[in-house]
Amino acid sequence: METVSENRCFGGVQGVYRHASQATGCEMTFGLYLPPAAEAGPVPVLWYLSGLTCTHENAMTKAGAQAAAAEAGIALVFPDTSPRGEGIADDAAYDLGQGAGFYVDATEAPWAPHFAMWSYMVEDLPAVIFEHFPCDPARQGITGHSMGGHGALTIAMAHPERFKSLSAFAPIAHPSASDWGQKQLGAYLGEDRGAWARHDATLQMRAAGYPGHILIDQGTQDQFYDLLMPGALADAIAARKQPATLRLQPGYDHSYFFVASFMADHVRFHAEALGA
Amino acid sequence: METVSENRCFGGVQGVYRHASQATGCEMTFGLYLPPAAEAGPVPVLWYLSGLTCTHENAMTKAGAQAAAAEAGIALVFPDTSPRGEGIADDAAYDLGQGAGFYVDATEAPWAPHFAMWSYMVEDLPAVIFEHFPCDPARQGITGHSMGGHGALTIAMAHPERFKSLSAFAPIAHPSASDWGQKQLGAYLGEDRGAWARHDATLQMRAAGYPGHILIDQGTQDQFYDLLMPGALADAIAARKQPATLRLQPGYDHSYFFVASFMADHVRFHAEALGA
Repeated sequence: METVSENRCFGGVQGVYRHASQATGCEMTFGLYLPPAAEAGPVPVLWYLSGLTCTHENAMTKAGAQAAAAEAGIALVFPDTSPRGEGIADDAAYDLGQGAGFYVDATEAPWAPHFAMWSYMVEDLPAVIFEHFPCDPARQGITGHSMGGHGALTIAMAHPERFKSLSAFAPIAHPSASDWGQKQLGAYLGEDRGAWARHDATLQMRAAGYPGHILIDQGTQDQFYDLLMPGALADAIAARKQPATLRLQPGYDHSYFFVASFMADHVRFHAEALGA
Repeated sequence: METVSENRCFGGVQGVYRHASQATGCEMTFGLYLPPAAEAGPVPVLWYLSGLTCTHENAMTKAGAQAAAAEAGIALVFPDTSPRGEGIADDAAYDLGQGAGFYVDATEAPWAPHFAMWSYMVEDLPAVIFEHFPCDPARQGITGHSMGGHGALTIAMAHPERFKSLSAFAPIAHPSASDWGQKQLGAYLGEDRGAWARHDATLQMRAAGYPGHILIDQGTQDQFYDLLMPGALADAIAARKQPATLRLQPGYDHSYFFVASFMADHVRFHAEALGA
């Protein structure tokens, strides 16, 4: 693991690191914020999964999460959204290929060799984090925005023993029924929709749910509202009687100005659930 | 004036606007954050002047200022750092020309026709702000980072009746004695150093000072520490017995992670001084 940069931030350290990932078969870059409390011992960890076109950097610089994390004593992980580099498959569209890994393990050509973001999140990156940093693997929460909200919901519902708290900002809530999902799941996983189910938060909510209370924020003026399909997930939550708080936030759109506005709420929500 | 974008943010509106400036002879873009309190009437205004290479956008997206501004009920203005465009003089160096206006009115070729950022800040942009937005011209404060800290200090000391509160993050404190200053003041104003004095915070502190209490934050690990010359300004502040708080912040560098870490302090400092 290589240190790219480290900056003091709210009394802690905002770092950027690079490591070789077996899952993606390439070098991966991630951000990690350690709060001041990490100097005294392992702290809980909140994973923040980013949306389409993002790298590790967007949320790290624009979501304003470090202030609340420093106060709550919780670490923040900012992974990249796909494998990257020359020799790695890509697509001219912003919503497929590099920057758009969709948090799945691709089985189809040309994506299969590198696009394994599900395994990267569940295996490779945690191994690096918990080997090198004072983070407590027994206290992990996960959140994300848009495509990252999709990733957070689906990964947490598949690994509730690991992710003990869960939230999302404007998640892609029902990808198997949306133009934000059908294209990508088809490309990465093929046309057999049986393989899609565990990557659809609405279907997973209907099938399994989540053992904790979920927090979801969604802006009413989100320019991608129809693609995100928040209603499908809300209906599934209601059908299951899933403990959840779904907040429709008047006037907010899909930007980081929306994410930043509610980030402190989410950080505190996770910190409380994880006993930070 | 043209609206480029408006995003809801912490209950208020983060806008970006474009207008024709007489001072710079070109179109200028600026950001303006209006807090929720602005719906009820004019609010105080904090000007945030940015550093080398920045546009109106950097601080607006990376400084995390809106949260504190919403809470305090104060507006934030994020001006650009120079005129821009084809047909406007530039230099290949990052620290001269476009993105590096240094908050002076250039008198020398090729800069004189457009590089009038002093007049832009003092005349053109205030006229636009107070014509179009619920901002109170009687309650203005000013701050900035690096080159913008230089701008805030020098503009406020020259206009204390207008800027009733003043702070800075890692300002270029003594440009007429630094490589961050001699090059630019020479290029924009010529080699007669008499014209430089009002654009040097240390010299202005010795000559005039400021009627209010000044807040300055400076990171001890700032990679540009020697170019900024905080000691020269500190010495001038001590010599004048200027009411001021100068904070050397251990471990912090020159980045926006430093600015963001102390932004809420600065916003609250201005809000209190301006009676927000």
